[in-house]
Amino acid sequence: MKIEIIAIGDELTSGRIINTTSSFAARNLFEAGYEIYAMNTIGDTPALIGEALKQALNRADAVLVTGGLGSTDDDLTNEAVSKALNRPTLPNLEILSTIRCHLDEITSTPVSRLEKLAWLPSGATALNPGSRMAGYQLIHDDKPIFFLPGIPSQMQQLLVEEVLPKLSTWHKEHRLATYQRVFRIFNLPETEVNRRIATLDLNPDVQIGYYPVYPEVHLSLTVRDKKTNNARRLFKSSCKAIDTVLGDAIYGCDRESMEQVVGRLLGDKGLRLAVAESCTGGLIAAKITEMPGSSVYFLGGVVAYDNSLKSHFLGVSAHLLTSCGAVSREVAEAMAVGVRKQSSADIGLAVTGIAGPGGGSEEKPLGTVYIAIATAEENWVSKFHFPGDRQQVREITAQSGLDLVRKYLLQGLNPGKED
Amino acid sequence: MKIEIIAIGDELTSGRIINTTSSFAARNLFEAGYEIYAMNTIGDTPALIGEALKQALNRADAVLVTGGLGSTDDDLTNEAVSKALNRPTLPNLEILSTIRCHLDEITSTPVSRLEKLAWLPSGATALNPGSRMAGYQLIHDDKPIFFLPGIPSQMQQLLVEEVLPKLSTWHKEHRLATYQRVFRIFNLPETEVNRRIATLDLNPDVQIGYYPVYPEVHLSLTVRDKKTNNARRLFKSSCKAIDTVLGDAIYGCDRESMEQVVGRLLGDKGLRLAVAESCTGGLIAAKITEMPGSSVYFLGGVVAYDNSLKSHFLGVSAHLLTSCGAVSREVAEAMAVGVRKQSSADIGLAVTGIAGPGGGSEEKPLGTVYIAIATAEENWVSKFHFPGDRQQVREITAQSGLDLVRKYLLQGLNPGKED
Repeated sequence: MKIEIIAIGDELTSGRIINTTSSFAARNLFEAGYEIYAMNTIGDTPALIGEALKQALNRADAVLVTGGLGSTDDDLTNEAVSKALNRPTLPNLEILSTIRCHLDEITSTPVSRLEKLAWLPSGATALNPGSRMAGYQLIHDDKPIFFLPGIPSQMQQLLVEEVLPKLSTWHKEHRLATYQRVFRIFNLPETEVNRRIATLDLNPDVQIGYYPVYPEVHLSLTVRDKKTNNARRLFKSSCKAIDTVLGDAIYGCDRESMEQVVGRLLGDKGLRLAVAESCTGGLIAAKITEMPGSSVYFLGGVVAYDNSLKSHFLGVSAHLLTSCGAVSREVAEAMAVGVRKQSSADIGLAVTGIAGPGGGSEEKPLGTVYIAIATAEENWVSKFHFPGDRQQVREITAQSGLDLVRKYLLQGLNPGKED
Repeated sequence: MKIEIIAIGDELTSGRIINTTSSFAARNLFEAGYEIYAMNTIGDTPALIGEALKQALNRADAVLVTGGLGSTDDDLTNEAVSKALNRPTLPNLEILSTIRCHLDEITSTPVSRLEKLAWLPSGATALNPGSRMAGYQLIHDDKPIFFLPGIPSQMQQLLVEEVLPKLSTWHKEHRLATYQRVFRIFNLPETEVNRRIATLDLNPDVQIGYYPVYPEVHLSLTVRDKKTNNARRLFKSSCKAIDTVLGDAIYGCDRESMEQVVGRLLGDKGLRLAVAESCTGGLIAAKITEMPGSSVYFLGGVVAYDNSLKSHFLGVSAHLLTSCGAVSREVAEAMAVGVRKQSSADIGLAVTGIAGPGGGSEEKPLGTVYIAIATAEENWVSKFHFPGDRQQVREITAQSGLDLVRKYLLQGLNPGKED
């Protein structure tokens, strides 16, 4: 079953806002076994909205439209749909009553403006009439069309709770059994991943995709078949083959992030981490603490951006900072040892480097980074030369630091490899 | 002049990768005075690529295509274009020689695979023949079509350095004088922004857009006219009117982020900031240090995720932590005072709160956050109840902390307002 996605909003066609709602919809629909025919993004222009909707109804089996349902003056989707499909707008009484019930909470906005939200093209069924921002469904030419708000959180909830269940009862026979895994790879270039996969001689029904997602490479494996058993069998054997050729360059699968993997490993071993960050300026800690429950294995640490904080909080000697420089093997190690000791953590991770744009020298060019790990038994320091701009160097440094902790937790001593 | 953007890649239609390249292109083209007719996203399927390209040539004046130009097996754009436009692929000798020159760097990939990159539809002009990943231009039906790689950094560079200059010499008369400003608003709901703007009775030629970008609201003002003077005059007077009704809820304009504004104000006053973060876990420091040159005004700080680090590094007494709890007015203040003193900063900023999903209580529900500022003269603590999930609470806490520093720098003492 082919689905077309239409996202509406001048904020999208002027490039000011990145369209995340279409990606969210595509991912969830794809994983539920639908084919995404096309994703269109157009401005808040009634004629264009009508044209795109008619085109989608011509070539797809179902349509998902997001955006332009709000109460502000630039929200024109309902008017455009009404005109294009010849369905005059009518007030939805349930939504109207919801809006009137909540008027006291939002007294600053005129009633007439809010009531705009309740006027839907005739034949529309509200998806969540108890909410002021209701999505709705239309059946037109015997095809379902879903209209959802453009605000990501509202759209996501309605897609998962209303649209997917409704679609699943619609034309069941058109869905394919779909198995997909995304292998998340770090520290191996895309061409090398491709070369290793090419040696496998996989079944031609296996779809492979390569996607550089800085600083990682993601490899997707997709198997689709009308017969579930066939698809599952082929999927399992292909996954195994890929694991064999890529080994521990695969740090995780599907949506598991590096910080999630590291958190899981720390939790399993009952170890606690602390970090000392210079060039990443808090990025590693921020990534780790994105995970709910990270307080079990993460104590915190020091953002030692200024040298005075490296000395004061981490005990890095002024002599070391002067003689070796803040970006050096010795200072990285002292930072890791210092943060481990000061915080009573099991593992101390420290990074110091030159993220740019300024600060490079011939001896230590931009992208020079030292990453150190300190444990009760031993300490290691690895030196890197990362390419890229400030943001990229910070990102790859954070990822490399976490990857070194991952490898230490998997393999024990001396996880790093000198370049 | 209308431009259509086509992004190609199964990683996009399966929703695994968010399409940032189309947004980047749209923003840059829009700001250069072009109209974006539509943005299409389709998979790596030759028939669909051909169909989309023909449709775009039918309705737009120029086309930008990104993705599917790489060397891996799923890159099919050149084949599809060749077939759709009836232009057989031919090897581009300059690109071929670039590839052969660099073979020693990438020995692991077979030559035949890399040389795929050099085979372009006939009539193609390479945009950067000195690179292995070359974009190219075709003129078809007297319309320019640009093909760029899908990797964001490569695509962005080619768009700015090659496509925009080439487009600007093509059909000059079709461009409109475009003035746009994005007002970045924090701490004022979208409906209230809309209500205040409605009181202004702006000229109907002024296009206004509202975009909630969590946790901010962005308001865009666009004026386009064939006559530059008309557009500029209307733009200036409208900006002034908006400034009047929104006041200091506007923290910045266009692409200026909160951390950039705070950095600029700190730099202007020659003051230095240090932060102590509990629930944001390093996010505030990471945001501040995204800015090049932040070392001038940012010393660093402590990620005091675990209570032991609040005591050890910041001197928060164990008694205070036990009697008031880690999420309290008293502990927030002690953290701000502590980090300011320990780091010898001019301003100490501290946050402590409950980001969830666990940890809430009746007295201190999820989203309870205390933010403190300590200066040489005085300290203040503000209490907040933020709605949303873990990620949203962390994000709005970080933004609110920075906004309090901004208001302190603008207005002096007691910047916060108690809720």
